[in-house]
Amino acid sequence: MSFRLKGFERKPLEDRYDVIVVGAGPAGLSAALYAARYRLKTLLIGETIGGQLANAGLVDDYPGFIEVEASQLIQSFVRHVEKHGVPIERDRVEDIKREDDFFSVYTRSGRVYRARAVIIAVGLERKKLGVPGEAEFVGRGVSYCTVCDVPFFKGKRIVIVGGGNSGVTGAIHAVGYASKIYLVTRGEKLRAFPIYVEALNKHRDKIEVIFNSTVSEIGGDKEVRYAVIKNLKTGETRKVDVEGVFIEIGNQPPTDFFKKIGLEVDEHGLIDVKPGGYTNIEGIFAAGDCAGGKNKYYFQQVVVSAAEGASAADAAFKWIIQKRYPIMGLS
Amino acid sequence: MSFRLKGFERKPLEDRYDVIVVGAGPAGLSAALYAARYRLKTLLIGETIGGQLANAGLVDDYPGFIEVEASQLIQSFVRHVEKHGVPIERDRVEDIKREDDFFSVYTRSGRVYRARAVIIAVGLERKKLGVPGEAEFVGRGVSYCTVCDVPFFKGKRIVIVGGGNSGVTGAIHAVGYASKIYLVTRGEKLRAFPIYVEALNKHRDKIEVIFNSTVSEIGGDKEVRYAVIKNLKTGETRKVDVEGVFIEIGNQPPTDFFKKIGLEVDEHGLIDVKPGGYTNIEGIFAAGDCAGGKNKYYFQQVVVSAAEGASAADAAFKWIIQKRYPIMGLS
Repeated sequence: MSFRLKGFERKPLEDRYDVIVVGAGPAGLSAALYAARYRLKTLLIGETIGGQLANAGLVDDYPGFIEVEASQLIQSFVRHVEKHGVPIERDRVEDIKREDDFFSVYTRSGRVYRARAVIIAVGLERKKLGVPGEAEFVGRGVSYCTVCDVPFFKGKRIVIVGGGNSGVTGAIHAVGYASKIYLVTRGEKLRAFPIYVEALNKHRDKIEVIFNSTVSEIGGDKEVRYAVIKNLKTGETRKVDVEGVFIEIGNQPPTDFFKKIGLEVDEHGLIDVKPGGYTNIEGIFAAGDCAGGKNKYYFQQVVVSAAEGASAADAAFKWIIQKRYPIMGLS
Repeated sequence: MSFRLKGFERKPLEDRYDVIVVGAGPAGLSAALYAARYRLKTLLIGETIGGQLANAGLVDDYPGFIEVEASQLIQSFVRHVEKHGVPIERDRVEDIKREDDFFSVYTRSGRVYRARAVIIAVGLERKKLGVPGEAEFVGRGVSYCTVCDVPFFKGKRIVIVGGGNSGVTGAIHAVGYASKIYLVTRGEKLRAFPIYVEALNKHRDKIEVIFNSTVSEIGGDKEVRYAVIKNLKTGETRKVDVEGVFIEIGNQPPTDFFKKIGLEVDEHGLIDVKPGGYTNIEGIFAAGDCAGGKNKYYFQQVVVSAAEGASAADAAFKWIIQKRYPIMGLS
């Protein structure tokens, strides 16, 4: 992704915090903002600044920001968090354990941070197609983010797999770069929002939509040279010469990570939350796309994630007060 | 309030819509934005553009907007809605009735609009103190919005009633205008966010906080000249010479309006919603501060209201699709 960490004024890292926020997408950034505004000593740990938003192009559905580049919107969120003095640590959290009156948060880089409360906002990971050639050609023609990588495919022929919002908006975005776009969907029609399908239909000269199908094989030499498109109804296959295969078939939560911590998950593997982001573990809250359960209207939008982050910070604040823990950020 | 309706490009009003959004605060504006993005033919009817946000000063808790004037933030929301072509009608909705396959929406000005679905986002109304002189001096020294009206009290002495966020931020805001501020609260301490209390404490030279007390009487001639502050523990009263009394004791929902429509309410008189804003009436959704119930984490923030508006629009869209109503906005 193209986002650059410019101008970060990093506070020295310490060992103990009131709140650690895990995940640097809209939910995590908003949670950190709210926690800091409540004068909680807050640390944000995340791998990808902006989360899935880092994969988006132009954003027009965060109320108040009209047609803004995703990178700009992320920058605005980050600056807002920075203004309130929250250090943002780029690392991956691998485990969280309750130890005495603190949670210990273990990261891949080997650091351990402790906090009274933890807000988990790690979002979702990209789903794999699971076909021959896919793993082999990752980074050599196979990509999971059309918007991020299609600028490298100027004048080239590509396949996009997926008929949802990511696939369709990816195809629209690709029109400005690729010479030919095969959009492959398992469905009989595109599942994307009508507004996106409408926009796509203006570019049918470059975009060929192939229904009831998937990519069953990816091949090439050093780089991708072809893909096999299989019709799932007839079994028929068609080999197309392409140099890029973009897989946009959705996302999945890191359920194993949640289970390792001891968090209860719903039937989709999302953290089961009550309103406010309360989980089954007292002191651990969840917000954004990684949070689910029947108490929540699941809607993957920046504004929804930001709202859930804010609410989780509020709930964490009240929980800390209720436990009568001294607030470190006030001392 | 100071917001001006500049640059509205109003579409001619029609009689039938896919969705009517009632209320023009952050929840209503966001709902209208999302509905329009889904190509639903949408009308927004509201009395106060910006809703309660119109009473705020500087806003620093809508992620991405760093220290923005509330009027600016409202403007950004309105422009975003305008861009998607939604007419904004300034009127008060007085009744909503199901008639055939449409809801009929009756306004104070005598108009009737019809829609497949309605999203109610009317927010809350200001609470009254209910003491002698209050009603008499409204607009002549008595105000329910410190931030809106305190600029008219330059160099004057004022009382603010209320120890929550509105009262405390109102007092901070008043420091720039009034010569002396009595902040009166029923509580033994201020209930506002720590960050606000901290800011208030920097101005204790001008602000006198009076605990365990309320204003029991307001008096004057043509305008307010005094207020009586009563200690609720000792019963002691103290008459202070002031020219302004700002009542910031909270808000309440228009519960009678909800009941008239047939909506079920919770114990606070808020519309009882399920996740996504579903109410007990199929086709009517609710979002923002007017929506409550045990399925919701009640948190009065712009970002939360905006998220609920977005979710309600998504739910309304799915409901219209499910009912197989033709989408007018697409024809």
